[in-house]
Amino acid sequence: MLLNCDMGESFGVWEMGVDEQLMPHVDLANIACGGHASDPNVMSKTLALAKQHDVTVGAHPSYADIAGFGRRSIPYQADELTHLVLTQIGALDALCQFHQLKLSYVKPHGALYNDMHKNPEIFEAVCRALTGLNQVPQLMVHATQCQGFISELAERYQLSLIKEAFADRRYLSDGRLQARSQAGAVLTSKEQLLEQVDLLLSQRSLRCADGSLLKVEADTLCVHGDNQAAVKLVQAIKQQIQSSNID
Amino acid sequence: MLLNCDMGESFGVWEMGVDEQLMPHVDLANIACGGHASDPNVMSKTLALAKQHDVTVGAHPSYADIAGFGRRSIPYQADELTHLVLTQIGALDALCQFHQLKLSYVKPHGALYNDMHKNPEIFEAVCRALTGLNQVPQLMVHATQCQGFISELAERYQLSLIKEAFADRRYLSDGRLQARSQAGAVLTSKEQLLEQVDLLLSQRSLRCADGSLLKVEADTLCVHGDNQAAVKLVQAIKQQIQSSNID
Amino acid sequence: MLLNCDMGESFGVWEMGVDEQLMPHVDLANIACGGHASDPNVMSKTLALAKQHDVTVGAHPSYADIAGFGRRSIPYQADELTHLVLTQIGALDALCQFHQLKLSYVKPHGALYNDMHKNPEIFEAVCRALTGLNQVPQLMVHATQCQGFISELAERYQLSLIKEAFADRRYLSDGRLQARSQAGAVLTSKEQLLEQVDLLLSQRSLRCADGSLLKVEADTLCVHGDNQAAVKLVQAIKQQIQSSNID
Amino acid sequence: MLLNCDMGESFGVWEMGVDEQLMPHVDLANIACGGHASDPNVMSKTLALAKQHDVTVGAHPSYADIAGFGRRSIPYQADELTHLVLTQIGALDALCQFHQLKLSYVKPHGALYNDMHKNPEIFEAVCRALTGLNQVPQLMVHATQCQGFISELAERYQLSLIKEAFADRRYLSDGRLQARSQAGAVLTSKEQLLEQVDLLLSQRSLRCADGSLLKVEADTLCVHGDNQAAVKLVQAIKQQIQSSNID
Repeated sequence: MLLNCDMGESFGVWEMGVDEQLMPHVDLANIACGGHASDPNVMSKTLALAKQHDVTVGAHPSYADIAGFGRRSIPYQADELTHLVLTQIGALDALCQFHQLKLSYVKPHGALYNDMHKNPEIFEAVCRALTGLNQVPQLMVHATQCQGFISELAERYQLSLIKEAFADRRYLSDGRLQARSQAGAVLTSKEQLLEQVDLLLSQRSLRCADGSLLKVEADTLCVHGDNQAAVKLVQAIKQQIQSSNID
Repeated sequence: MLLNCDMGESFGVWEMGVDEQLMPHVDLANIACGGHASDPNVMSKTLALAKQHDVTVGAHPSYADIAGFGRRSIPYQADELTHLVLTQIGALDALCQFHQLKLSYVKPHGALYNDMHKNPEIFEAVCRALTGLNQVPQLMVHATQCQGFISELAERYQLSLIKEAFADRRYLSDGRLQARSQAGAVLTSKEQLLEQVDLLLSQRSLRCADGSLLKVEADTLCVHGDNQAAVKLVQAIKQQIQSSNID
Repeated sequence: MLLNCDMGESFGVWEMGVDEQLMPHVDLANIACGGHASDPNVMSKTLALAKQHDVTVGAHPSYADIAGFGRRSIPYQADELTHLVLTQIGALDALCQFHQLKLSYVKPHGALYNDMHKNPEIFEAVCRALTGLNQVPQLMVHATQCQGFISELAERYQLSLIKEAFADRRYLSDGRLQARSQAGAVLTSKEQLLEQVDLLLSQRSLRCADGSLLKVEADTLCVHGDNQAAVKLVQAIKQQIQSSNID
Repeated sequence: MLLNCDMGESFGVWEMGVDEQLMPHVDLANIACGGHASDPNVMSKTLALAKQHDVTVGAHPSYADIAGFGRRSIPYQADELTHLVLTQIGALDALCQFHQLKLSYVKPHGALYNDMHKNPEIFEAVCRALTGLNQVPQLMVHATQCQGFISELAERYQLSLIKEAFADRRYLSDGRLQARSQAGAVLTSKEQLLEQVDLLLSQRSLRCADGSLLKVEADTLCVHGDNQAAVKLVQAIKQQIQSSNID
């Protein structure tokens, strides 16, 4: 079970996150590539940090929406979206080459990530972008929402999926995340978080908001870390995974 | 002698140039990649057009200056410039892969092009970008200004140079272009233009503003075409080159 | 009956429209203010042109979407939209002061214009922007869609409405414009256009797509003009209005 | 002696500074207006905060350079710069009206501020912007660099100057700030800072880097505050000024 984390979301003089502290503890870095955050210098710095800690690098493309941090559903035609995603991946990939790194996977960001799980046209536009590249990266998706058109299109486009679950989010029994506006949607206590991780590791399951158990075949856990306390939580999760591997 | 031309300089709904009419007549397309003009859709459309006419594709990166069309000297630190140029090349290259095209060369645009011929730090920042790529593209420079640090750094970075002369600009005897503010700096009559091209083809020379002859070893001629009349001129130059090849 | 027209939609080096030719023939200039098009220089140049021809000046604010020319429905929170519209109006107004012009009215652009006629929250966000100004401008709306919440909110916010009809668009009997994707949605022949204008002038009515007559109390006709032919049509409409005034 | 401070320099989701903590202690808030930082929402929030603490509001316009935080000298033609400054002031002023605040003064930011003290054309472009407004704001300048063309142009354009000194910067004897690259250029200890403030208050003088005394007629002190420690220093300076007023 690998840990993935959004990284490189600073912009110009504006800093976000504590990447230096988090990078040593994660396996996969989802690196912003100018759609919702970042710029050429931030990308380069983040890649250097990933290289230093031997972290696998992925692109984190987004609707072109710096003003809204990629959180707004902006309507695109399918081919426009394919072009947009390609240019963001390409921008990051050129810097990967500069740092002698390989771009291994793509995890769309924010509203694009949400929308592609709901709308086959949007998901297919992303698929077309990835398969257009000479070295086709893997594509990260929700482990709990990859049935139906997601797996069908991934198969048709011969894309390899990386399936993720969230360590710190409460799920609905249909596999969607509980809305952040609901109380309890975000797990904040260390106990809750480690319990969710333990269930994922030991039983490949999640305990849903309604108390039901949901089977989840996840390859990776998404973690966040904007501050010192969050870094400590990530470290605890990492340790738990390592202990579980020994068992 | 190949013809190169700036292409793909539309932006969003705003169109520039007559690329559809020009593309059939050129050999090398310098394709804007978002620094001074273009967007993912314009890039993709321009690459498709280049592919249709079997035109060799190059990136045309610029200072990040859509507002000023890349014509303003914006100060960058050397490493910032390297990162910027890499992301622009990378963006275009991803779309090249999508269209199964090869990105063969890079010609910096506008103020960046001018500045790199004057300032070794800026030229080296560009060199570092190109040599950072897995497949190192060639670099286009002024045929008349590639002595000194240009050729030294190109050699040190093992970059292959494409040397260009301008069909429609008057040169100073030191190899620089006469300032556009000077009368006669831009050749507008068909006769003048074809005379300059003839001299370049037959004697590898340019007649300078002061009447002197300047030796020029050019691989390519830069042409422009914003309207129907300009397209006709480019066609005439193309014919002249083809005749000269037969001789 | 006044003619209104979108103006100042160039951007940087990219030109759009034939403002110099159209300005002499219109009464109200809806001037882009950086949301979907324009920049400080284009705004200033357009205002100078409006002043020269004694044309009344209005702001043409938009969702912040240069890439999509303001044609995409981008989700904003109500207060964000109020702030956005205020800054665009303010930017244009400062240049109005510089040119000793008065900013008389506001006509939202594109998707924002469409959305505000459908969504009371969006319309109210615009109302709040206008009434926040020391000198409250008038607000332009569809003459055929200003019943219900539009007129109620305008009254509550004490906004004066300018009601417009389109000279060159076919209407549905419910007052909406026929979708551009439908055949006949845009009137292109001079005869059709002048017939529609005549009906508006003489009978305060529109002939709808289904043949029915729709009563319309319009203060202004929206005209467009991207080329020479369009300018001639605008001139013809202007003449028709002037003849009708004499009658 | 008033305290002025740069405020409202967040951008989208990216926060900068501790405006909530600083605002209660300053007299004049230089509010970013989209050139180097800020957006419509940040501007509105910052104005609301200024209003709450009864702080006088000024615009802090900049070269259009979010990527470089306005710290780079970008070449503009004079009239372009006038238009740019006007639109930024206008954007903030519309929000001032919305919050029923008055925009009292303008302090250009970063490279524009530096350049206007060196280059009469740039200073005049700023003057033309301010005098173009119906209610002409005051203009903040370096107290130690306002002789020569600065005072001449200000007089010709009938602009009222607010003269500022820096509490935390070491000056050269010619009135310029010592370059940040020099050791000791920024006063960091509380003692040094309060000593400089004391000299300014009691003797209207600064102790320069070479030990000489420089006469300074300052109306306001520029303070900074990015963190908790800086806020405490600003409080200390405020107290010192208040004590001095009592004497």
